[in-house]
Amino acid sequence: MTEAAASAAPDIHGGTMRFPAAKALRLDSGARLAPLEIAYNTYGRLNADRSNAVLVCHALTGDQHLASVHPTTGKPGWWSRMVGPGKPLDPERHFIICSNVIGGCMGSTGPASIDPKTGQPYGLSFPVITIADMVRAQAMLVEALGVETLFAVIGGSMGGMQVLQWAADYPEKLFSAICIAGAPRHSAQNIAFHEVGRQAIMADPDWRGGGYERAGVRPEKGLAVARMAAHITYLSEAALQRKFGRELQRDGLSWGFDADFQVESYLRHQGASFVDRFDANSYLYITRAMDYFDLAAKHGGALTEAFAKARRVRFCVLSFSSDWLYPTAESREVVRALNAAGCRASFAEIESDKGHDAFLLDEPQLDATLRGFLGAQAQARGLA
Amino acid sequence: MTEAAASAAPDIHGGTMRFPAAKALRLDSGARLAPLEIAYNTYGRLNADRSNAVLVCHALTGDQHLASVHPTTGKPGWWSRMVGPGKPLDPERHFIICSNVIGGCMGSTGPASIDPKTGQPYGLSFPVITIADMVRAQAMLVEALGVETLFAVIGGSMGGMQVLQWAADYPEKLFSAICIAGAPRHSAQNIAFHEVGRQAIMADPDWRGGGYERAGVRPEKGLAVARMAAHITYLSEAALQRKFGRELQRDGLSWGFDADFQVESYLRHQGASFVDRFDANSYLYITRAMDYFDLAAKHGGALTEAFAKARRVRFCVLSFSSDWLYPTAESREVVRALNAAGCRASFAEIESDKGHDAFLLDEPQLDATLRGFLGAQAQARGLA
Repeated sequence: MTEAAASAAPDIHGGTMRFPAAKALRLDSGARLAPLEIAYNTYGRLNADRSNAVLVCHALTGDQHLASVHPTTGKPGWWSRMVGPGKPLDPERHFIICSNVIGGCMGSTGPASIDPKTGQPYGLSFPVITIADMVRAQAMLVEALGVETLFAVIGGSMGGMQVLQWAADYPEKLFSAICIAGAPRHSAQNIAFHEVGRQAIMADPDWRGGGYERAGVRPEKGLAVARMAAHITYLSEAALQRKFGRELQRDGLSWGFDADFQVESYLRHQGASFVDRFDANSYLYITRAMDYFDLAAKHGGALTEAFAKARRVRFCVLSFSSDWLYPTAESREVVRALNAAGCRASFAEIESDKGHDAFLLDEPQLDATLRGFLGAQAQARGLA
Repeated sequence: MTEAAASAAPDIHGGTMRFPAAKALRLDSGARLAPLEIAYNTYGRLNADRSNAVLVCHALTGDQHLASVHPTTGKPGWWSRMVGPGKPLDPERHFIICSNVIGGCMGSTGPASIDPKTGQPYGLSFPVITIADMVRAQAMLVEALGVETLFAVIGGSMGGMQVLQWAADYPEKLFSAICIAGAPRHSAQNIAFHEVGRQAIMADPDWRGGGYERAGVRPEKGLAVARMAAHITYLSEAALQRKFGRELQRDGLSWGFDADFQVESYLRHQGASFVDRFDANSYLYITRAMDYFDLAAKHGGALTEAFAKARRVRFCVLSFSSDWLYPTAESREVVRALNAAGCRASFAEIESDKGHDAFLLDEPQLDATLRGFLGAQAQARGLA
């Protein structure tokens, strides 16, 4: 292990550590964020030539507890099935890093953090952030951990957007990049669903204009509705039909507004459990960052230009056939741009009826594809 | 005009009339609804042999103002483009009836009506209703108007469900039936989206457990969020992309939570304008009726059985290629059941990128198909 990495004292067991950045983070909005702290977990050890680091980027409601028990829910980490001995991401071979995005609520600086100007939680005075800002913060962390080049950056959904942003902004720091169920920009429908969620939160009187922390309340009902609406978009119609159909909770209908159907009860549970582990203002800020995401826009409208310096990076782009939130067509657009930029890009549409959430679920073809791609890259990198 | 029809005094100009039912309405729940009043508009005159009546069934948020200026919004009726001289539904040839569903909020008995037991608005003590209950009420109205057999019953979305229910419950009263963008049952995804809307309404403290009328408030924020979520499902992703894409409201981003994107502003407007014309409790009751809709369930699970007595009815089933709320597969299922029951059924999937709402929009292929089908039926009925 190198001195720089040692100084960051990675916990190979995946407990959360905090990286206090020495300097302010320059944001796309023009604001500067300071102090900046990044909460992260690591698994495995950086090898002697610092060539085995993998950065995993989480999705909207994910966090750094990639393969560690979640401190609030007590459940296994969100990608435990992908991380472990013999799994595609293997702490015995890889040094795996996963950090909470800025704007998040699991320890990285976000709207619930203390604003040094007021000594109070930021609330809505937290600056609006972008996917590029999240990536810029990750780059500071990765550098502090002594990693010059990431063997791989990988993520699904919003994590996939971060992967593409890494390729655009730091191609020289990447050996390979894996974008799963991602998109090069947020579509009108994506923005629309996010706006419904934000309006649900802001309609809750306990939101208090974003100042609920100071008031000692939380907009739980609004956040639960936001989660319920979003959750539908993460599943395919076929998956909902297969899991629930029109199955009832009890024998017979209630002839009222209780949860008659199992799908109602399931959704209510999704909403209720979400508010225990997530912060409403973080939900506003992170959905906003996703809405603002349009990788081509910063490059004169040409997505190919975003990848102009990434010709050396080895890409893998994956989509799911039943994902209607970030449909395969959007991944194909990324692949076309990568090809036009002269990048190496593998692409697969994985057949699945599980919808967008397939990247988090038991999908053997995904595991096999990642294992194959990472194995080939390890050989090319001299890791195998 | 017959005496019975004259006694109901149809207004050929489409002003709203009220039909006070002489007897209570028996409901599927076992409850009885009395008094019962149905608000309805008519266009044209019933001919001498009472053979030209067309019943139009409205969708979730529709009403009886089929082709009349809406009293609240001042806008043309929701299907003005389909009703008029020379149009597929022609008051010079047809006697067109459109009634507000029970449970609604435009004059038919609903949760805002006075509960005779308390002298107060029903609120949540209004009984849960079904699509079959709506149709049973319509049948009372149609009979009172002196119509024994409807030349056609026609409707889109929830209106299409009512059409199928008419065919199951009153086949002897139908000459033809046109189901547009309908379904034989509400899917898990349909129920899920409705549940989000209901939770948004019930999360609003101004809902007051359904008793907001008595409290002199209205759960406007919750109802607006419900409408926003639903509205996304009425449009296709392609339509949202074509209409709005990522177009901004102003030059540049706001770096805040104002409506930056035109699609956000559009959705907010949809929510805000909806609360002016719709009642939150009616929204709960009507969505519940739709969720409970499962035509096969009442017939031993066999959809074909629902149509067993409708062999004489001439059916037209239409769907839209980009409708993901009630996709073509569900219309095909209806057509298969009709065929298996030995009914005559025309079927067309209309190519459109407008999504579910296509039935309300400028869709020339829809007009042409309805004109052709109704023309052929008029000839068969001896109306042409």
